[in-house]
Amino acid sequence: MDTITFPSSSKPFLEPYLPKIPPSKTKQNDDFPFTTLTFATSLDSSLSLAPGTRTTLSGPQSKAMTHYLRSRHAAILIGVGTAIADNPGLNCRIEGVGGYGSPGLDGQPRPIVLDPRGRWEFTRNAKILTLAREGKGRAPFVVTGEGVGVDEGRRGILEECGGRFIKLGLGVDGKGFDWRELLRLLKREGLESVMIEGGGAVINSLLDPGFQHLVDSVIVTIAPTWLGRGGVVVSPERRVNDSGTAIAASRLRDVQWHPFGEDVVLCGRMGQV
Amino acid sequence: MDTITFPSSSKPFLEPYLPKIPPSKTKQNDDFPFTTLTFATSLDSSLSLAPGTRTTLSGPQSKAMTHYLRSRHAAILIGVGTAIADNPGLNCRIEGVGGYGSPGLDGQPRPIVLDPRGRWEFTRNAKILTLAREGKGRAPFVVTGEGVGVDEGRRGILEECGGRFIKLGLGVDGKGFDWRELLRLLKREGLESVMIEGGGAVINSLLDPGFQHLVDSVIVTIAPTWLGRGGVVVSPERRVNDSGTAIAASRLRDVQWHPFGEDVVLCGRMGQV
Repeated sequence: MDTITFPSSSKPFLEPYLPKIPPSKTKQNDDFPFTTLTFATSLDSSLSLAPGTRTTLSGPQSKAMTHYLRSRHAAILIGVGTAIADNPGLNCRIEGVGGYGSPGLDGQPRPIVLDPRGRWEFTRNAKILTLAREGKGRAPFVVTGEGVGVDEGRRGILEECGGRFIKLGLGVDGKGFDWRELLRLLKREGLESVMIEGGGAVINSLLDPGFQHLVDSVIVTIAPTWLGRGGVVVSPERRVNDSGTAIAASRLRDVQWHPFGEDVVLCGRMGQV
Repeated sequence: MDTITFPSSSKPFLEPYLPKIPPSKTKQNDDFPFTTLTFATSLDSSLSLAPGTRTTLSGPQSKAMTHYLRSRHAAILIGVGTAIADNPGLNCRIEGVGGYGSPGLDGQPRPIVLDPRGRWEFTRNAKILTLAREGKGRAPFVVTGEGVGVDEGRRGILEECGGRFIKLGLGVDGKGFDWRELLRLLKREGLESVMIEGGGAVINSLLDPGFQHLVDSVIVTIAPTWLGRGGVVVSPERRVNDSGTAIAASRLRDVQWHPFGEDVVLCGRMGQV
């Protein structure tokens, strides 16, 4: 069994940044799930060496942390670019969760794939679907734009293993979803918490000054590497103040840094600059 | 007195990354000074919001660390862009160094300004020169390209307070210096160690795969802020392997992360990827 262990000694520093169990009633806006943004970058804020390339940046401890974080969220969300480029499993392999030492799927997050224009041409052999059929993870919900045609074959493949397509109207830009509408949708589906993993387009749009208040916690792993120019960079759109001067896009508050093998893990909450 | 204190408790984690006192004879190539690269960035690897803008990123503890690091190096080096944009003092204000509680200039680093094309039109009132005249720092050595004319008025201003112009041939690109030649020059001037502080052009060129082996230690402060796109970014040129595939530009070894107020300090040595 391909299980992963995350040491108990590493859990306390994460706990203040994770959704409460059971879900807290103190969240300001009950329309939204608890939202955690998490990813790993190089020192030069790159997720990978090039679009469509998967670059292993962080060490084994950070990987175990990612799986532990998955066990603590009801859903895990990625953009279609990552689904296509990485063929990810998006399950949780922590020892003791459903499919990895326990019956059922307890502790397995629901994968959410954002595919506003219906670009994901998956087959039965997509890793995420194979894992779902093997009882090692949940099948994904694929969120597509209203009016985007869905291939009936793919619908069948998805529904066979417990997944489905969900329609959502596009945002004002006509290209992607409005994060408020999307998070409300997840909440209506009963998903009380969501961990947003990537890729670059998803992360940068969520860090946009217009949306970042929707994020409850940020957990970023930084590896001591410079990938160099031309990578997929996490950097939000610039903000300007009332007089047109550039100001920082966002500053984290309640910050904690936790050295973790060769990497460092940064936990924080979105705050005002 | 505008003195700064750096707590003794914060010194041990830096010590393995600093030049030895007295200068070590074990350095591989005695032609070069001990070279420390140090700077502060945002999470998206920006030094500042825009070229020519000074952005305060790191907290007071990191500032005190910078002054402590200055006290531990014989020279401190910046590019002309930073000299023009920031009008920096480049002295050391740690309590007890020369000019800040002690007579003389012991502990004050020699400022080196790289100005290959003679762009720095300083006056007597430049902060760095004022401090030198006040006995609170050393006057700078300004390194200019061979054949670049030097204004006699500025030469007088510089020499009046103990500084001077030094000529050096430009590198093969005809725009800047070759780091090997420059570091050899500093060593010939009796400067056994140099701390390279910025700005972006200087840092990125030193992180270039062709030069990074000249760096002994890297000390980077990261602040929990995203500045957003359009800033002055630290990210070296991309490397490719023999088959033309992009690979990481560089990876640090002997890495230590040290949480420091709201920031984190990363210490490491340049290593192979």
